[in-house]
Amino acid sequence: MSSNRQLKLGAFMRPVSIHTGAWRYPGAFADANFNFAHLRRFAQTLERARFDAFFMADHLAVLNMPMEALQRSHTVSSFEPFTLLSALSQATERIGLVATASTTFDEPFHVARRFASLDHLSNGRAGWNIVTTSNPDAALNFGLEHHMAHDERYARAREFHDVVTGLWDSWADDAFVRDAASGRYFDPARLHTLAHKGPYFSVRGPLHIARPVQGWPVIVQAGASEPGRQLAAETAEVIFAAHGTLDEGRSFYADVKGRLAALGRERDHLKILPAAFVVVGDTVEEARAIRARLDSLVHWESAIASLSISLGVDASKFDPDRPLPAVPDTNASKSSQQRVIALAEREGFTVRQLAQRLGGYGGLAFVGTAQTIADEMQEWLDSEGSDGFNIMFPWLPGGLDAFADKVVPELQRRGIFRREYEGATLRENLGLPRPANRYFPGPTASGSAAA
Amino acid sequence: MSSNRQLKLGAFMRPVSIHTGAWRYPGAFADANFNFAHLRRFAQTLERARFDAFFMADHLAVLNMPMEALQRSHTVSSFEPFTLLSALSQATERIGLVATASTTFDEPFHVARRFASLDHLSNGRAGWNIVTTSNPDAALNFGLEHHMAHDERYARAREFHDVVTGLWDSWADDAFVRDAASGRYFDPARLHTLAHKGPYFSVRGPLHIARPVQGWPVIVQAGASEPGRQLAAETAEVIFAAHGTLDEGRSFYADVKGRLAALGRERDHLKILPAAFVVVGDTVEEARAIRARLDSLVHWESAIASLSISLGVDASKFDPDRPLPAVPDTNASKSSQQRVIALAEREGFTVRQLAQRLGGYGGLAFVGTAQTIADEMQEWLDSEGSDGFNIMFPWLPGGLDAFADKVVPELQRRGIFRREYEGATLRENLGLPRPANRYFPGPTASGSAAA
Ligand SMILES: Cc1cc2nc3c(=O)[nH]c(=O)nc-3n(C[C@H](O)[C@H](O)[C@H](O)COP(=O)(O)O)c2cc1C
Ligand SMILES: Cc1cc2nc3c(=O)[nH]c(=O)nc-3n(C[C@H](O)[C@H](O)[C@H](O)COP(=O)(O)O)c2cc1C
Repeated sequence: MSSNRQLKLGAFMRPVSIHTGAWRYPGAFADANFNFAHLRRFAQTLERARFDAFFMADHLAVLNMPMEALQRSHTVSSFEPFTLLSALSQATERIGLVATASTTFDEPFHVARRFASLDHLSNGRAGWNIVTTSNPDAALNFGLEHHMAHDERYARAREFHDVVTGLWDSWADDAFVRDAASGRYFDPARLHTLAHKGPYFSVRGPLHIARPVQGWPVIVQAGASEPGRQLAAETAEVIFAAHGTLDEGRSFYADVKGRLAALGRERDHLKILPAAFVVVGDTVEEARAIRARLDSLVHWESAIASLSISLGVDASKFDPDRPLPAVPDTNASKSSQQRVIALAEREGFTVRQLAQRLGGYGGLAFVGTAQTIADEMQEWLDSEGSDGFNIMFPWLPGGLDAFADKVVPELQRRGIFRREYEGATLRENLGLPRPANRYFPGPTASGSAAA
Repeated sequence: MSSNRQLKLGAFMRPVSIHTGAWRYPGAFADANFNFAHLRRFAQTLERARFDAFFMADHLAVLNMPMEALQRSHTVSSFEPFTLLSALSQATERIGLVATASTTFDEPFHVARRFASLDHLSNGRAGWNIVTTSNPDAALNFGLEHHMAHDERYARAREFHDVVTGLWDSWADDAFVRDAASGRYFDPARLHTLAHKGPYFSVRGPLHIARPVQGWPVIVQAGASEPGRQLAAETAEVIFAAHGTLDEGRSFYADVKGRLAALGRERDHLKILPAAFVVVGDTVEEARAIRARLDSLVHWESAIASLSISLGVDASKFDPDRPLPAVPDTNASKSSQQRVIALAEREGFTVRQLAQRLGGYGGLAFVGTAQTIADEMQEWLDSEGSDGFNIMFPWLPGGLDAFADKVVPELQRRGIFRREYEGATLRENLGLPRPANRYFPGPTASGSAAA
């Protein structure tokens, strides 16, 4: 049980919770999706609990569900991540602020600039969760009739990443000399104009904001298909994974970490943090009762619609009381389809049972006491299933408060979670190096234009 | 001198100042473009002085100047407006937060969403300064080789506005019923899916955020050409004008206000606020000396480059010691070209004199004591030259502090500026009505999804 490694913990947030039934739970903040005061409270609790990051999910359309199901969902209204995290940067001091931003429906110049600005405003706490966008209906809000094909999304994402990081390197860390006597604000020899021309993007640059405090905001990646894994191995510093079991986690961990050496990257410079839905009780029975109650609050229409989305096919046509039939390949998220099929097989679920579970939360869950939850987390850490977790709370504020008040102290007591932040930036807390500027190599660890 | 009308005052901000020489002025915060603490101080001073709005200029590329001039400019680094104003929303309570956002280089779905989010975060203080983007080099950062033609930019801007406001009206103010018992989060009859298809945009909607607190954030417009004026008369609630003289101001005011009746709009529902560069001294001589010192800090290379940009032609080829020659029409800002030609004629400037003035600030300026400045402002107000001003400060923090400490009390003493904010939202303070939802008409004045 002895381990020198410590868990890294992110909080994967939607304002009301990830769980579809959460807003109906007694005491839940059902209006958190338009009430910033609630979000400030959540972020401050997470910081008090020493979480690495507040991690904001994001989507570019209402859920692709029939109206009968959609009207059950609190996700139809949410703050936009950059505005929300910028506001939270003023209510917190140490916790990382990770925004999900799509490479399929935005421009690298805008994305590079917004993250740089957030990194300056937060004194080095920004992170970018790169997604290619899972909801195909987003295309309809951006002048397209169909979602871009899966492989093309990833090719575009890879080039998008290169343009964004190139733009962040527009200015050397010491470019801004501000010499009032000569009237020179910056040294032109310390400015690089990107002049990128590629298959998807032509971007001249330079970016008109100083290099981020962290050099680059922390790069996070959430795709789990083969192109998703490869993109992550090449570019990501944190992977937001999704596994059903420890075995799956271990094989994913070995696979992705195994790709790093060939890419000239250090094993420790990519943190793998699977999603974990955590329900805490004073007894295991109490925790199970909370989950059962929550799941009972998911409306059947939502349940079957969630199953349809995860599979990328209309599941309302299946017989609810028989096992899941074979499902064709789709252009939607391949990893999510595989995960759901595996869950159904593992649990021997009927379509109905599968839908009820997915309508709530169908992924990895730790349901028990602070002790049993800490045991499970420690097992994942010790057996190289993960470097930590992205925690999903069953409902807010109660599920979050219980985690902060009960599970975190137990992890600290075992020496597998920090009692104080190690550093000032998200990178420092995650133990990640500050990237050298590709155009102006040299010592950068201490330098920062914002200093 | 008796007037029941009061001035509306915005502060037109770039982090270090609008004036190119400002960062070299003794005591200036030359690093405000990466130091949020300075911006927070500015916003809090403006709120204490009861300004209507903190108004953030924006550009999508470094200035289109030769490097010899560019390296003199503090504008090469700036915060991005949405992230900055979201952070400022947490440091202030009443002042409006107006972001400039381009209709030429962004998507209506993103823009609608970000403003709605800022409006919720600030409890109804957001405003959108619609620009078609003046700097042609922005095109190079977004995959284009040339700036879109002037008329086409305005046609796109008009459609962009209609899509954004349509998306803001996606949800009735009372759409979110959150009925935990039945499991219904919203009433589908109170949701409108836009399904817009036009020459420039196809956007399905709905927007996945509740209707803004103000119904719509306040619409601001800054173009002054014929299509710019018409767009403003049709859509704007505030015009950010730029005039050289009171006569120009009066004829613009009469022209644009005169267009409103035919459009079915009330004269008072469009506020015309020209830019005014204000330099305050304890004597007129002191104020003039401050301005002269500031102008002397503008480097010659910047001066001539500023003139080139304003004219849309390379002015370094002109004889600096002769009057301005005839200048051809360009695709750049027509109103800025006309303004500069008028200034040169009015003052009888040589090219050199014109360039030195423009390198600093070439537009309307009030340079004097609190008394003389208040006299000039009052004359504009009384003679229907404007409804107030967008103030530009010569340097920060000193020029802003002097305005707040000296000019504002004099305006208040005369009864032409508020001592306390009239309302909670930017709309209420500007005396603008809350727009009805076009799809769900009915009483909305008191309703707000955020309440
Ligand atoms: C744990 C996890 C969280 C995700 N969060 C988001 C999100 O917030 N927004 C989004 O558009 N996609 C999200 N995705 C989707 C992925 O970014 C990706 O687009 C999708 O998984 C398809 O890629 P894949 O086939 O490589 O998995 C998430 C995926 C995973 C596994
Ligand atoms: C006072 C004033 C302020 C402006 N501020 C901005 C700005 O911050 N960003 C921008 O891209 N354009 C800005 N503009 C440019 C206008 O939005 C518009 O694009 C330009 O004036 C061209 O249109 P026009 O020919 O109708 O004037 C400003 C214009 C004026 C008159």
